[in-house]
Amino acid sequence: MPEAAPLPQAGGITFLSEIRGQPAALRALLEHEGAYARVAAMARERGTKLIRMVGHGSSDNAASYGVYAFGLIPRWTAMRDSIALTVHYDTHLPMAGSTVIGLSQSGQTPDVIEYVARARNAGAYTVALTNDLDSDLAREAEDALPLAAGPEHAIAATKTYLNQVAALALLAAHAAEEGPRYAKALAVTAELLDEAIPELEQQVRTMALPFASIGRMFVIGRGTEFATAREIALKLLETCRVAAEPFTATALAHGPVAALDPLFPVWTVASHDETLPAVVEAAARVRAAGATLVASGDAADALGDAAYVLRVPQAPSPLLSPLLSVVPGQLFALALAQAKGLDPDYPAGLTKVTLAT
Amino acid sequence: MPEAAPLPQAGGITFLSEIRGQPAALRALLEHEGAYARVAAMARERGTKLIRMVGHGSSDNAASYGVYAFGLIPRWTAMRDSIALTVHYDTHLPMAGSTVIGLSQSGQTPDVIEYVARARNAGAYTVALTNDLDSDLAREAEDALPLAAGPEHAIAATKTYLNQVAALALLAAHAAEEGPRYAKALAVTAELLDEAIPELEQQVRTMALPFASIGRMFVIGRGTEFATAREIALKLLETCRVAAEPFTATALAHGPVAALDPLFPVWTVASHDETLPAVVEAAARVRAAGATLVASGDAADALGDAAYVLRVPQAPSPLLSPLLSVVPGQLFALALAQAKGLDPDYPAGLTKVTLAT
Repeated sequence: MPEAAPLPQAGGITFLSEIRGQPAALRALLEHEGAYARVAAMARERGTKLIRMVGHGSSDNAASYGVYAFGLIPRWTAMRDSIALTVHYDTHLPMAGSTVIGLSQSGQTPDVIEYVARARNAGAYTVALTNDLDSDLAREAEDALPLAAGPEHAIAATKTYLNQVAALALLAAHAAEEGPRYAKALAVTAELLDEAIPELEQQVRTMALPFASIGRMFVIGRGTEFATAREIALKLLETCRVAAEPFTATALAHGPVAALDPLFPVWTVASHDETLPAVVEAAARVRAAGATLVASGDAADALGDAAYVLRVPQAPSPLLSPLLSVVPGQLFALALAQAKGLDPDYPAGLTKVTLAT
Repeated sequence: MPEAAPLPQAGGITFLSEIRGQPAALRALLEHEGAYARVAAMARERGTKLIRMVGHGSSDNAASYGVYAFGLIPRWTAMRDSIALTVHYDTHLPMAGSTVIGLSQSGQTPDVIEYVARARNAGAYTVALTNDLDSDLAREAEDALPLAAGPEHAIAATKTYLNQVAALALLAAHAAEEGPRYAKALAVTAELLDEAIPELEQQVRTMALPFASIGRMFVIGRGTEFATAREIALKLLETCRVAAEPFTATALAHGPVAALDPLFPVWTVASHDETLPAVVEAAARVRAAGATLVASGDAADALGDAAYVLRVPQAPSPLLSPLLSVVPGQLFALALAQAKGLDPDYPAGLTKVTLAT
């Protein structure tokens, strides 16, 4: 873990330390590859036709990534299922042929636990993905996979989100019997994260100040990077009190583009994959509307004409780029919170474990 | 169509006329009930296990409702599928046993057409839901259902959204052989809309002025009303340039609540169904954060302590409440746009048919 830059004096020491701890967290996850291989084999054996993922906040953002991990590697349809339908409305949907993944860092999210219990009764193969293998969620599911991110103390999730994304990639890869190849690529990604973080820390610091009076932003991504857009928007909301809303590149054109003006910046996540042309087109619309454009990702330079550029290294597989492209957003949220005099470790009104139903 | 109140002098004549035209549009849809019964029978005959809905903007918001319509009536799993996975990444997912519903008012949305073409090749039963039965989308799908909303000229969708929601309810009802009962309830809903619109028009006019300097809002709903929250937020974005973001009641507690302050109002959609306790709890958190609360829906009074209350009549079935609860949001968007001197008929940067990929 690089320690070159001094820790900030303002709030945010825990948040920064956990952002810096992400490469180590990723390596810790890879030590559990055997568990992922076993659960993937069981999902195949149980005849999985559909992956149903449930979680809230960052966990739900990671599930957005899972749609692509399972779609692109084993070619399984995966969805972010409605918790309300099963838990609140008590709808008994047949779930044989489904594998359920309940995502909760703490393993204590009440309606995720309740969903998993009901899905199991409905015939699904249920798997908990959690930092706490002794949690109620882990007990309620048939199998539990360790998130292995280590204790997370800042309220806003960082390393647990990164490990959820990596865990879904690893599980999807094993489902297609491509586990070892992806595990190796994930280890390389951890090294790239180590290299990228110190420079990004410096870049976001100079960038944060002009954003201190900004009250709203859009964050644009598509495909695998829609999860990144959602996660960066959530970090900005919870640590910086910025009304940041994520959109797919295409959804932006269907209405929201009308809200843009020069005081409404747009953060664009651009990575080298098949969705890049749609993102480039969306960025051009943003510029045409006069809005300030932030370009991030390994294809940030493809956007041209951006006011701010935050590059990350190219991942060993395009599917793993979200592990790198989320980091500039995490670090920018930290820098912006500090520029605004907010404490990103303890945002107002939040607790680490949310027990709301 | 009630014409008691004079049409406004500012921009918005078309928008208002189309909002007022919704009861008539709904009645026009019901004249095509036979087509919905035939497609529902075909979906059953083809062994539907999964409904895949695709669309952008308001069409995607209506698809959020479809998740609950198909889940609650025929107890089919329904999802808003990823267009990017199939179209941009060229992933060939097996789709036998799936019924695809492509939602596009114009029938000209390029990636929705392309998705439907590919889904058909992959073995899905494909259905277009569109205002134009001669469109490319209608031709590409095996069957086409008329949206029957009549020409819509304002850029921001209103009556086409309402009819998409009603169409999904009608199709879901026929899939469970409950079509006639729901068709009758939809006809009653059209009458309730006729009664409710004139009074709501008056109420939003006095309410809009204090919101003229507001730049950001949250819109909260859960279950069937999450679609309403999404649609109201989109209207505010595209016609009023307000950064309005929709959240489920539970997602609000997982981070976004930290962004709230007295200048950050929260619009809450509350209807009498099983998700109401979660919405009431979320509203209490909003008030605790000092934010201004707008309560709307047929259970608006259950929230207590709201600064503004916009009641709607109770629908003949809880599942149909979104047809009523969206209207206060449409009318408020119109009134707020006029208070801000914007033309809601022609928001900057938007065209009626979006050809972005």
